[in-house]
Amino acid sequence: MTQTTHPILDALRKELGAKYVLTGKHAEPFARDWTGQVYTSPLAVLRPADTKDVSQIMQLAYLHEVPVVPVSGRTGLTKGTKADGQLLLSLDRLSAIREIRPAGRIAVVEAGVILSDLHKAADMHDLIFPLTFGARGSAMIGGALSTNAGGSNVVRYGSTRGLCLGLEVVLADGRILDLMSAVHKDNSGYDLRDLMIGAEGTLGIITAAVLRLMPKPLAYASAMLACSSVSAAVDVLNTLQAQTGGAVEAFEYMPASFIEGHLERFPDARAPFEARYDVNIFVEVGALSSRDADPTPEGQIPARAHLEDVLSQMLENGQVLDAVIAQNETQRAEMWARREAAAELSRLHDPIVDNDIAVPVDRMQDLLTRIETRIHALDPDIKMLNVAHLGDGNLHFTAWPKTTDKNTHAAINLAVEEEAIALGGSFSAEHGVGLSKLPAMARHKDKVALDVMRAIKRALDPKNILNPGKVIPAPDDLP
Amino acid sequence: MTQTTHPILDALRKELGAKYVLTGKHAEPFARDWTGQVYTSPLAVLRPADTKDVSQIMQLAYLHEVPVVPVSGRTGLTKGTKADGQLLLSLDRLSAIREIRPAGRIAVVEAGVILSDLHKAADMHDLIFPLTFGARGSAMIGGALSTNAGGSNVVRYGSTRGLCLGLEVVLADGRILDLMSAVHKDNSGYDLRDLMIGAEGTLGIITAAVLRLMPKPLAYASAMLACSSVSAAVDVLNTLQAQTGGAVEAFEYMPASFIEGHLERFPDARAPFEARYDVNIFVEVGALSSRDADPTPEGQIPARAHLEDVLSQMLENGQVLDAVIAQNETQRAEMWARREAAAELSRLHDPIVDNDIAVPVDRMQDLLTRIETRIHALDPDIKMLNVAHLGDGNLHFTAWPKTTDKNTHAAINLAVEEEAIALGGSFSAEHGVGLSKLPAMARHKDKVALDVMRAIKRALDPKNILNPGKVIPAPDDLP
Repeated sequence: MTQTTHPILDALRKELGAKYVLTGKHAEPFARDWTGQVYTSPLAVLRPADTKDVSQIMQLAYLHEVPVVPVSGRTGLTKGTKADGQLLLSLDRLSAIREIRPAGRIAVVEAGVILSDLHKAADMHDLIFPLTFGARGSAMIGGALSTNAGGSNVVRYGSTRGLCLGLEVVLADGRILDLMSAVHKDNSGYDLRDLMIGAEGTLGIITAAVLRLMPKPLAYASAMLACSSVSAAVDVLNTLQAQTGGAVEAFEYMPASFIEGHLERFPDARAPFEARYDVNIFVEVGALSSRDADPTPEGQIPARAHLEDVLSQMLENGQVLDAVIAQNETQRAEMWARREAAAELSRLHDPIVDNDIAVPVDRMQDLLTRIETRIHALDPDIKMLNVAHLGDGNLHFTAWPKTTDKNTHAAINLAVEEEAIALGGSFSAEHGVGLSKLPAMARHKDKVALDVMRAIKRALDPKNILNPGKVIPAPDDLP
Repeated sequence: MTQTTHPILDALRKELGAKYVLTGKHAEPFARDWTGQVYTSPLAVLRPADTKDVSQIMQLAYLHEVPVVPVSGRTGLTKGTKADGQLLLSLDRLSAIREIRPAGRIAVVEAGVILSDLHKAADMHDLIFPLTFGARGSAMIGGALSTNAGGSNVVRYGSTRGLCLGLEVVLADGRILDLMSAVHKDNSGYDLRDLMIGAEGTLGIITAAVLRLMPKPLAYASAMLACSSVSAAVDVLNTLQAQTGGAVEAFEYMPASFIEGHLERFPDARAPFEARYDVNIFVEVGALSSRDADPTPEGQIPARAHLEDVLSQMLENGQVLDAVIAQNETQRAEMWARREAAAELSRLHDPIVDNDIAVPVDRMQDLLTRIETRIHALDPDIKMLNVAHLGDGNLHFTAWPKTTDKNTHAAINLAVEEEAIALGGSFSAEHGVGLSKLPAMARHKDKVALDVMRAIKRALDPKNILNPGKVIPAPDDLP
């Protein structure tokens, strides 16, 4: 990268101060993603201090017609913040937690707040902001909202969308859209909040939000289960939800190949069961009341005892083949660590084809069967590692084909996406579209929906300067 | 009404059959609202059989540039379906429950399904569709979605928006937008679903939806409480949520004037307490597990016993001044009947000024105090009846001024709305905008938000034929 002298840069330096308009090697740290790779060569990196700064940047960008790509924690997986030759607008300095209101169960935060910092702030009031995933130590609220991030407790708390009450957004021409409502009922015109959430910065730049907080579980009942099939596991899920008042916080599926791969990679780890099972489930139930969480005189956690009762019955009637309940925090941590090794395990081999899809919970069994058939027809020797947030129907598909042939890789992805759609699901679950899923959007998304998205994009960003080229495929990209 | 001969009517008769294009006295039953009043004089009432019919109607309307107003159960409160001289498109024949999938917790329904019919269908599978309100026997799913209807259990299950996974929508030009996704994670471009929900038919006509179903509570623990203040009641709410794992299904505030008005209107009814209290709360907790719901050998419902324990503690430490727990279904029904008399009580006197506003839960006390001060400054003798869904911060304000002066009425509404906004709330909570709240939209809604809504309306409905004039005030209406 070299020092650049685009006319907008002088204006930006005057506005923000030269120190916050980074080019050349100064820009480089902001152009590295979570893997450490420099992933893009922006014209400059901008570091506004507040919403007013963001507004002034957009006024200048609108005037000069220079594209702006908002970025926060740089932990995305779909190239949604690639900004070659464009302005990369980092929200990292908008990092204030403006307010935590325990009685109102509300946090007012800026876009650059790191997810785990909000976790800590909520914890001081015995509350949680439930959204959580592996990248929580660097991912920021702005990115989570812009991609409508998911995670492993969506079954209980919903995606980011469901945790947001209000937004502040800077539009393409610099105007500030004030949707900072903090109420649960607000029917005052079109739902612009949810339009901005998940739009990946293509309709506006989210600068602040009002978020919901929840009571903190006082204890957890966690277990590993083996079931005879994924369908049987879904029955177990529904029974557990009914038995616990919907308190299931995680319901994660791991196939036998996952357990084997895990033991291979971590020889000191323990297998969840003595026997080998095709369908292994990690389940966690949150106990919110002291009645469920406080140990009995015998030292028993009531929520755990209850889970044990329910599982015993299921073992008796054959709904569950095997079960192990975590007896303490160490055993619980071991279960979580096994599940969270998924990202690492999926990257152990090369070449890799991975995908992120979703189906209705009661269709997951069909999805796995159909994928297996189609993928093995393409490549009989292919190895796969399919891990699912079964509680919400989200499958993380990984395959390691022998071939590096791009066409075969594309055919694998196509097969996976087609089967998800055929079962009433989505070809794009929790990671967003960015650039990576543009071909899938062009191929699978309802054509009328794409047209409506384009009409909205034109209406809100007529000069096409907000993260252009992301999310919506160009009309001539249609297959 | 007289037989009309607009050129579009012949084309519509050819398309739908003459029997489903109603004019004159045949149209009248469809032009009556829930009070029995004929509220509008449409050009014709159309009764399409299916989505294809709706699409063909819109193609013709687009060609002829004739406005179309969708309507379903005609139970709205904001004149959102007034259609004088326009086509009133009734969705009542799209009344199929296409599918109930118990394991997937999903219902696929058409827009004309009556809410209580869906309740019955879900109940057959021991599930619930949680949305409920007084008009459930005639309100239809299409209207509930188009207005993002609320009700008294939003504290537990969210508004209609939160209960919808997928939509089918007919656009202004007749194209069919297929968003019938049935998954919990679907990040495939802009959230057009939530844009259509709450848009009151101004962006498209909702013809079908995929809805979420929930486990059915097996028992309820219901009680009347008296607290020293609304703030104290909010503390009780938060404690109860923590103690029950968020199982509070209703948390309803009634002032002393409500209790008195109720006894006056229903002399045979019982007072909730022997003493008179300023802050009366109806609370209901749902028990989802047999552990909480199955009677003990002594005949006790565990959830009820638990509520009793929690309330006893609160009585001891003064958080609660008085409490009565429903010991059986009759006593529970009595508590619900008292609360549900609110609509009738508010209409006992004339003239009436009413409003539907929301604030964050922890601001309700301030809101009530401020409203009282402002309204009494306008009219010291005014009588008020303020009932609140306190669990979600929604206040139904009713005042009976002595004067019929429209300016005083407007000043009362303005004061109420201003105080809600000043406390971070909304001037429009659960009833929608329609025509009634247009002045409030013009006065209070963020100007940038209004501009964005207008841009979206122009982009999606360039000929302004979808329920024109509703929801968004004209630019020159701005005060």
